[in-house]
Amino acid sequence: MTTIFDAPEEFASTALAGFCQIYPNHVRLIRNGVVRATTVPKGKVSVVVGGGSGHYPAFAGYVGQGMADAAVAGDVFASPSTAAVARVCRHAHHGGGILLGFGNYAGDVLNFGVAAERLRAEGIDVRIVAVTDDVASAVAGEHAKRRGIAGDFMIFKIAGAAAEAGLSLDDVERVARHANDRTVSFGVAFAGCTLPGANEPLFTVPKGRMALGLGIHGEPGISEQDIASATDLADVLADRLLAEKPPGCTRVAAVLNGLGSTKYEELFVLWTAVQKKLNGAGLEIVQPEAGEFVTSLDMQGCSLTLTWLDEELERYWAAPCDAPAFRRGRPDAAELRADLIVDEEVVPAIPAASEASCKSAACITDLFGEIAAMLKEKEAELGGIDAIAGDGDHGQGMRRGSDAAAKAMAAAVSAGAGAQTTLALGGDAWADRAGGTSGAIWGLLLRSWSNALNDSDAPSDAAIAEAARQALDGVTRLGRARVGDKTLVDSFVPFVDTLTAQTAAGNSAVDAWKSAATASEAAAEATASLTPRLGRARPLAEKSIGHPDPGAISLSMVAQLISGFLARRR
Amino acid sequence: MTTIFDAPEEFASTALAGFCQIYPNHVRLIRNGVVRATTVPKGKVSVVVGGGSGHYPAFAGYVGQGMADAAVAGDVFASPSTAAVARVCRHAHHGGGILLGFGNYAGDVLNFGVAAERLRAEGIDVRIVAVTDDVASAVAGEHAKRRGIAGDFMIFKIAGAAAEAGLSLDDVERVARHANDRTVSFGVAFAGCTLPGANEPLFTVPKGRMALGLGIHGEPGISEQDIASATDLADVLADRLLAEKPPGCTRVAAVLNGLGSTKYEELFVLWTAVQKKLNGAGLEIVQPEAGEFVTSLDMQGCSLTLTWLDEELERYWAAPCDAPAFRRGRPDAAELRADLIVDEEVVPAIPAASEASCKSAACITDLFGEIAAMLKEKEAELGGIDAIAGDGDHGQGMRRGSDAAAKAMAAAVSAGAGAQTTLALGGDAWADRAGGTSGAIWGLLLRSWSNALNDSDAPSDAAIAEAARQALDGVTRLGRARVGDKTLVDSFVPFVDTLTAQTAAGNSAVDAWKSAATASEAAAEATASLTPRLGRARPLAEKSIGHPDPGAISLSMVAQLISGFLARRR
Repeated sequence: MTTIFDAPEEFASTALAGFCQIYPNHVRLIRNGVVRATTVPKGKVSVVVGGGSGHYPAFAGYVGQGMADAAVAGDVFASPSTAAVARVCRHAHHGGGILLGFGNYAGDVLNFGVAAERLRAEGIDVRIVAVTDDVASAVAGEHAKRRGIAGDFMIFKIAGAAAEAGLSLDDVERVARHANDRTVSFGVAFAGCTLPGANEPLFTVPKGRMALGLGIHGEPGISEQDIASATDLADVLADRLLAEKPPGCTRVAAVLNGLGSTKYEELFVLWTAVQKKLNGAGLEIVQPEAGEFVTSLDMQGCSLTLTWLDEELERYWAAPCDAPAFRRGRPDAAELRADLIVDEEVVPAIPAASEASCKSAACITDLFGEIAAMLKEKEAELGGIDAIAGDGDHGQGMRRGSDAAAKAMAAAVSAGAGAQTTLALGGDAWADRAGGTSGAIWGLLLRSWSNALNDSDAPSDAAIAEAARQALDGVTRLGRARVGDKTLVDSFVPFVDTLTAQTAAGNSAVDAWKSAATASEAAAEATASLTPRLGRARPLAEKSIGHPDPGAISLSMVAQLISGFLARRR
Repeated sequence: MTTIFDAPEEFASTALAGFCQIYPNHVRLIRNGVVRATTVPKGKVSVVVGGGSGHYPAFAGYVGQGMADAAVAGDVFASPSTAAVARVCRHAHHGGGILLGFGNYAGDVLNFGVAAERLRAEGIDVRIVAVTDDVASAVAGEHAKRRGIAGDFMIFKIAGAAAEAGLSLDDVERVARHANDRTVSFGVAFAGCTLPGANEPLFTVPKGRMALGLGIHGEPGISEQDIASATDLADVLADRLLAEKPPGCTRVAAVLNGLGSTKYEELFVLWTAVQKKLNGAGLEIVQPEAGEFVTSLDMQGCSLTLTWLDEELERYWAAPCDAPAFRRGRPDAAELRADLIVDEEVVPAIPAASEASCKSAACITDLFGEIAAMLKEKEAELGGIDAIAGDGDHGQGMRRGSDAAAKAMAAAVSAGAGAQTTLALGGDAWADRAGGTSGAIWGLLLRSWSNALNDSDAPSDAAIAEAARQALDGVTRLGRARVGDKTLVDSFVPFVDTLTAQTAAGNSAVDAWKSAATASEAAAEATASLTPRLGRARPLAEKSIGHPDPGAISLSMVAQLISGFLARRR
């Protein structure tokens, strides 16, 4: 049970602030994250890590000498926004480029991915490593599909040491990928965790049983068995990992991770059995750790992570570091940075635009004003659909996102922005204010759409159709959803296909949009028969059968509104 | 729920072994404890801390440079034996004397106290500081009666730093006592903890409520209220402590301690409110900490500890240290000790004895053989009485203790020991094997009794009566129980009083013992009407009304047996 908070929605940000009050010699607070409080050599590669909150010491507890340069913190179990990732990265960049590390989850892949694209556009070299250590989430041949769990800690420790040693960005990325390729984890849960403000745990495990292959966001595991003795539990954890031991490997880094309510003394008891087991498999264990490294609020359970070492990985695993939650050896003394951190929102310059493009921008802004008004009206309806199998916040996210987009667009138009800039800034505002995966998707959709426009010409119907195609490509490339996954993509694909076909056939924009919106609406309603992809929401998947996907529905609502808007304006 | 273990009775020792496997650069395992793995300057005062297990990082996690030299670990929530304390101290002594630190609980006071007396007899200067920080356990004027909870951490940190700075034993003791006088804690519990192997928590708190003034062994608190917001909880915790702020104090050390299942992010949220509250009271907070420092297995709850600083306390609070569970600053580099630790039981030399004393020793040994046989027979009966309001292990403890005593006595007699030495060694063996408070009491009783005998003369009836008085003094001085507390003292006092009076009146030993045993038996049965003292077992106190105290009963059984033995032998 998570018990201590004032307002549940402020839990993550307040926790981060309190953490920074306790560790002023290690970290400084910025919005949605922390950066090192100590000086860093110019040109050093920066390692920036992050993800949702609720996993302390992941990720802010890793920031310090020899480990991460900064951490981005989303809400509890929710990815930080693209803007948050980008903002923290700008503060953490020392001229050597950035390695972005996070666990392999859809929202994080999306937000860190889009942020990396933004930063690259600003001239910062950014590389991405999504940690994929959880053997329960995909078979050995599909390592890249696995989730990231406690392996985060090993990869970020090793990458941080490589960066501290002065390696180039190419090399830090290579070492981090290599560490990820050689890191495996498996976990068990005895009881679920409870979100701040919730009365019930995200899942339960029957008394006397344990769930195998848990995730760290309330995913309850892939199978179940009776609770085992410490000796048998060591077998359960280690056997799955030892099955993936590379030939010839004799040295291993090991972390026995407690998920929250499994206590240190239990982990120490279990460790004696794990050590015996690993030694019995011919492995020498290098600097093992037992404790809390990646938690899941107050979840009861533990996981074992192994990294198959070679000389290079062992060097960085054993290297000294000094972060709030993890110290090793004696790193060189570091100076506290003397400069103030000015955490102002960067106000991008508005590029010059033609009168025609400004006029289009004003029209787009009017449109988004109507979209915002419509989504405000539909907030409860969308929330209701989402509540059947989700957390019920979809309506709220769409309302907040569209409202922020409309306001940002109006401001851009007042500042003389053209169509491309206006749509892009609207997308960024949507993503930053809406939160969650759907906010990121909508931000990405609008930004991708804007990329096919410009600030000099009034967009042609063909350009708009082309822009829709680009938006879909952006969403599927970074969002990774496919048709049939019961997401917004299910209604977006028929929309774009119809729009493209109708435009190519020479039909008017009004007609093309009308057909596309109709196709989108039909497809959105048809999602009722689908089951979501396996993933975070798996236990809820069956509940959603018979009900449409709220993301697909809201996209088709927006498409319908645009269709009507065009019919009135043309 | 404590879930991971092989055999519950091996939980504490296995956890300690696993801990030492994880921290080989900090600690080395010895029986019932750990000592620093690094070298220590000759003549440095040693700080040895300890208590029951289940409180990690208390106490083994505190062992390292700038903090403790060694830690003694009892079973879960049970004091370590006198022999364990003495053994660990012998390993930790560097010639500068020893400060023994522990929380103020009856079993610890007894075992650490008796161990200190043994060590002093061996020529080691030992001082004792029982931590008394819990404001819920006694009013401000009775600071010395308070329990020790998370204040342990502050006192041991400060005392450890003073010892590391090279202060004399007098000064380390003075600083530790001063720190204890200026340290206060108050805690709340949201849910109880579960012992390894148990199916139910030691106490429960109704949903939505919290218990105020908890202890760290399942003591459920002194009152209850609805769960508060973080801001209100900060008031609940801080107001009680601020009421005891010394006049003029403006600087304070603060620790927000999680009890096991209250997670770091919750503590950080709460910390923001605590900091505001303390600042608002005009206090500057020096190097605060939030995390797990003294836990109670998987208990859900937290406590706030404040130490009112002066210049000297602040210096030692802020000093660098490097222990497995707590590091601060950059202590000087330390070398790993190169020597082996030979953890053999010290076999004491048997002093020469007269033939008469050896004969008495053989007679005493025969007697204890009969006592052991009787207590083996009574094991289930005594266990049954104890199970009504306790953990039901009294019969087992008495059986194990008396059996060990009889065997040790037989060995002593074979080695030519006189009466005093034989009885003393029997007492030590009883305490070491029986475990728990009753084992310590019986060890102390027999050792105190032996002090009035010698190895040269056959003991006179008057000497035996005098010895009984000394044993009672020893038990009440270190055990702190008084008549009416529903303990063994309730039957021991009338026994000794009657024995003394009858002997003084010139009655035969047989008659005197018979009367004394009868008085003891009556008093033991009369304990059925008593309620135990407030303390660890408070929630069970009412259950015990109508049932006699098992310790008083077993003492009267032994007295009866001795009476019969004497009648047969004389």
